[in-house]
Amino acid sequence: MIFVLARGGILRHGWGMTSELSDLFHFLRFPSISTDSRHTGDVRRCAEWLVEKLSSLGLQTQLHETARHPIVVARNEHKPERKTVLIYGHYDVQPVDPLELWHSAPFEPEIRDGKIWCRGATDNKGQMLAHVLGVAKTLREQGDLPVNLIFLFEGEEEIGSPHLAPFLQAHREELRCDVIAVSDTGMVAAGVPTMGYGLRGIACAEVTLRGPKGDLHSGIYGGAVANPATAMARLVASLHDDKGTIQVTGFYDDVRPLQEWEREMWRNISGVSDADFLAVTGSPAVFGEEGYSSAERVWARPTAEVNGIGGGYQGEGSKTVLPAESFAKFSFRLVPDQDPKDILEKVRVHFETHCPAGVSIEIEIGHDGKPYHADPHSAFGKAAQRALSRAFGREPVLIREGGSIPIIQTFREILGVDTLLLGLALPDCQIHAPNENFPVANFEAGILLNQHLLNELALG
Amino acid sequence: MIFVLARGGILRHGWGMTSELSDLFHFLRFPSISTDSRHTGDVRRCAEWLVEKLSSLGLQTQLHETARHPIVVARNEHKPERKTVLIYGHYDVQPVDPLELWHSAPFEPEIRDGKIWCRGATDNKGQMLAHVLGVAKTLREQGDLPVNLIFLFEGEEEIGSPHLAPFLQAHREELRCDVIAVSDTGMVAAGVPTMGYGLRGIACAEVTLRGPKGDLHSGIYGGAVANPATAMARLVASLHDDKGTIQVTGFYDDVRPLQEWEREMWRNISGVSDADFLAVTGSPAVFGEEGYSSAERVWARPTAEVNGIGGGYQGEGSKTVLPAESFAKFSFRLVPDQDPKDILEKVRVHFETHCPAGVSIEIEIGHDGKPYHADPHSAFGKAAQRALSRAFGREPVLIREGGSIPIIQTFREILGVDTLLLGLALPDCQIHAPNENFPVANFEAGILLNQHLLNELALG
Repeated sequence: MIFVLARGGILRHGWGMTSELSDLFHFLRFPSISTDSRHTGDVRRCAEWLVEKLSSLGLQTQLHETARHPIVVARNEHKPERKTVLIYGHYDVQPVDPLELWHSAPFEPEIRDGKIWCRGATDNKGQMLAHVLGVAKTLREQGDLPVNLIFLFEGEEEIGSPHLAPFLQAHREELRCDVIAVSDTGMVAAGVPTMGYGLRGIACAEVTLRGPKGDLHSGIYGGAVANPATAMARLVASLHDDKGTIQVTGFYDDVRPLQEWEREMWRNISGVSDADFLAVTGSPAVFGEEGYSSAERVWARPTAEVNGIGGGYQGEGSKTVLPAESFAKFSFRLVPDQDPKDILEKVRVHFETHCPAGVSIEIEIGHDGKPYHADPHSAFGKAAQRALSRAFGREPVLIREGGSIPIIQTFREILGVDTLLLGLALPDCQIHAPNENFPVANFEAGILLNQHLLNELALG
Repeated sequence: MIFVLARGGILRHGWGMTSELSDLFHFLRFPSISTDSRHTGDVRRCAEWLVEKLSSLGLQTQLHETARHPIVVARNEHKPERKTVLIYGHYDVQPVDPLELWHSAPFEPEIRDGKIWCRGATDNKGQMLAHVLGVAKTLREQGDLPVNLIFLFEGEEEIGSPHLAPFLQAHREELRCDVIAVSDTGMVAAGVPTMGYGLRGIACAEVTLRGPKGDLHSGIYGGAVANPATAMARLVASLHDDKGTIQVTGFYDDVRPLQEWEREMWRNISGVSDADFLAVTGSPAVFGEEGYSSAERVWARPTAEVNGIGGGYQGEGSKTVLPAESFAKFSFRLVPDQDPKDILEKVRVHFETHCPAGVSIEIEIGHDGKPYHADPHSAFGKAAQRALSRAFGREPVLIREGGSIPIIQTFREILGVDTLLLGLALPDCQIHAPNENFPVANFEAGILLNQHLLNELALG
């Protein structure tokens, strides 16, 4: 299919593609957007494809129903003398809007400039499938794995994994393991192997403010009643001072201070300076809590972010209405030892206390997950660092992560084991945004990493 | 068409309808939304229908092109001994969203509960066509009018009348008149004839704040860069203190204080108490500048309103993005003797001064119009009050208006005459909002008012 390759080096499908890439392209084409009920069927078809793939490797595979999107579990034949390793991933993806900002269709994977462009390429289908294909390769090359393996793949990570904890509880015996590995985090830079030992937690809430029973003419009524859009702005503005410090009473009470060794280590990692954050984000300036570097702000300090705000006229031109209501969607990223339920209660009190006069407030509490922190120098931690060294040919760096994988903390609570965070995402991978991408090199390194990882973990 | 009348008293068309109502229904069915370029053809077709209607009355009628929507002018044969009266109206309408809140299709007029439900029913097609049909009736009954008449109808009132002032300048000789009458304002309550002697001005602006080059993952980057939605909230919140007083430096400098006789008169008008504003708007409470009643706040005090705010994820569920940008659409209602250009400059300085760190700001200045104030006790003012008394059978009340018809001030500046504000809109007419409506009784009173008005103005 030479015509495809001739088009500016864009590769969509064809004879020039490895069977691994071909598998990934199949996997990526399912628009498995878990938050959007219109895509429920796509999420299921994606899970069914996965079941077929895992079964074809000779793994004992099961699709478990939940109230929403299915969980897929696969395992080799377990032997008592081997270590048991659970590898977790998720096959659901984020929504794709704003669609007009994508340079290629979000669910038509393409290779351009050595990268795979598609929603889910990095988060998490590319990283997850690398583990599956690493296992496939080892089975092909050696006929067996050096460990007892459990694959656990869910379809609800992007909506807060509502059914995974109950599933873990119900299947805790079958899922008993010595350690868990997850590739759903980031590398500090291309080619720099990175092990994470901490994650931020998350707590979500949505607020609706209501004023008049319908949109009003801003001339005929403006001045006499509160404007819910103005009121929402005042409520949002109450969350921070002008330096970015969060004003919710007690918000920082349980924040574990950064250790000096962490700050020292992070200062020496290249690729995560303020200038790097500026370059990657394209923001006019870095901005955040005083007294911290950008990496420290993202990896070890909590936030209060508005993910969406809206109210009144959204179209072209002007419309002089006083809107009937407004909304804002909030997420709070939390660090050890903040507790999401405690934070959400403090936030609720803050919103109720700071709700401007003249409007009514409705607070809808959303999903949450605890922050995570583990010792990077445990035996399994060191084994994982050896695997990273072998796969990438250089020593890994140790970091925390700004993102949230609440299930990691849940694994510890229910299964009683730590999780190794062996992420392959690059800073410019655009996850959760238009033009998500994943380098082919990282996909290939991920396959190799899985092979070394199982070997190293087998040694303990 | 009995089946129509049988359906719960809903009347859409049929033999039970007067020819006046039938004309109005025709006029209302054009979705003449001037701000939306997709409706440009509808605005033109509406103007063409009007030309045909006016010509059919024997008036000399012309459609004048502008760079956007046409202006329609019609006149009877002018005689030197008669007073010349110009009647102004607009045939364009506001957008209709949110569409889902309408109880019937916005451009399919229906009569329910004695009211005509349709976008434009009150603002301004119903009120405007009453003048046309009043003239038609007088011509039918008397074969001539008591005055020289000029009808001036535009299609750009809802976008700030950008081409009307140049048109007035270019045609000031043909449009020379002794007085202007406009029905595009409100009655304080059903059955209470109301003459307006003041209008608020308007000044519009839209602000866009930009942060990262694209939406970011709020976990991976949150904390390191400013969030444009949060920044917009802070910028909007800077406009008022928590009592609703506007914080833009110099904003109140040129506000003419309320006169004691106005406050006294307004206190005695029934239907405009705080309780009435509460009932009509359905807001949880009245809210506004301290020391003023609701009527005073709306009729004689300026405002800073957010007409629309947006940024980040707007869909179902949650999406943990840090948005790339946010917008807010503002309108400021102004009172004598504030000048819109001066206010917009003060607002621009305020926005630039108060723009939070870490985002870039773009300020787009929109349309504006000066506030208006006239002596209600002039000879024409008294003539108009006599016409109102005769049409409604009781003495009119004298008020100012919260809305803006910037062209009224422009009429004074270019044509040198005052305008009589003889509005027929009721407090619950829902103009600029879903379920706009106009009582059939007001439409009929409007036709009668036009007949008395021309008679009274002919007397001077």
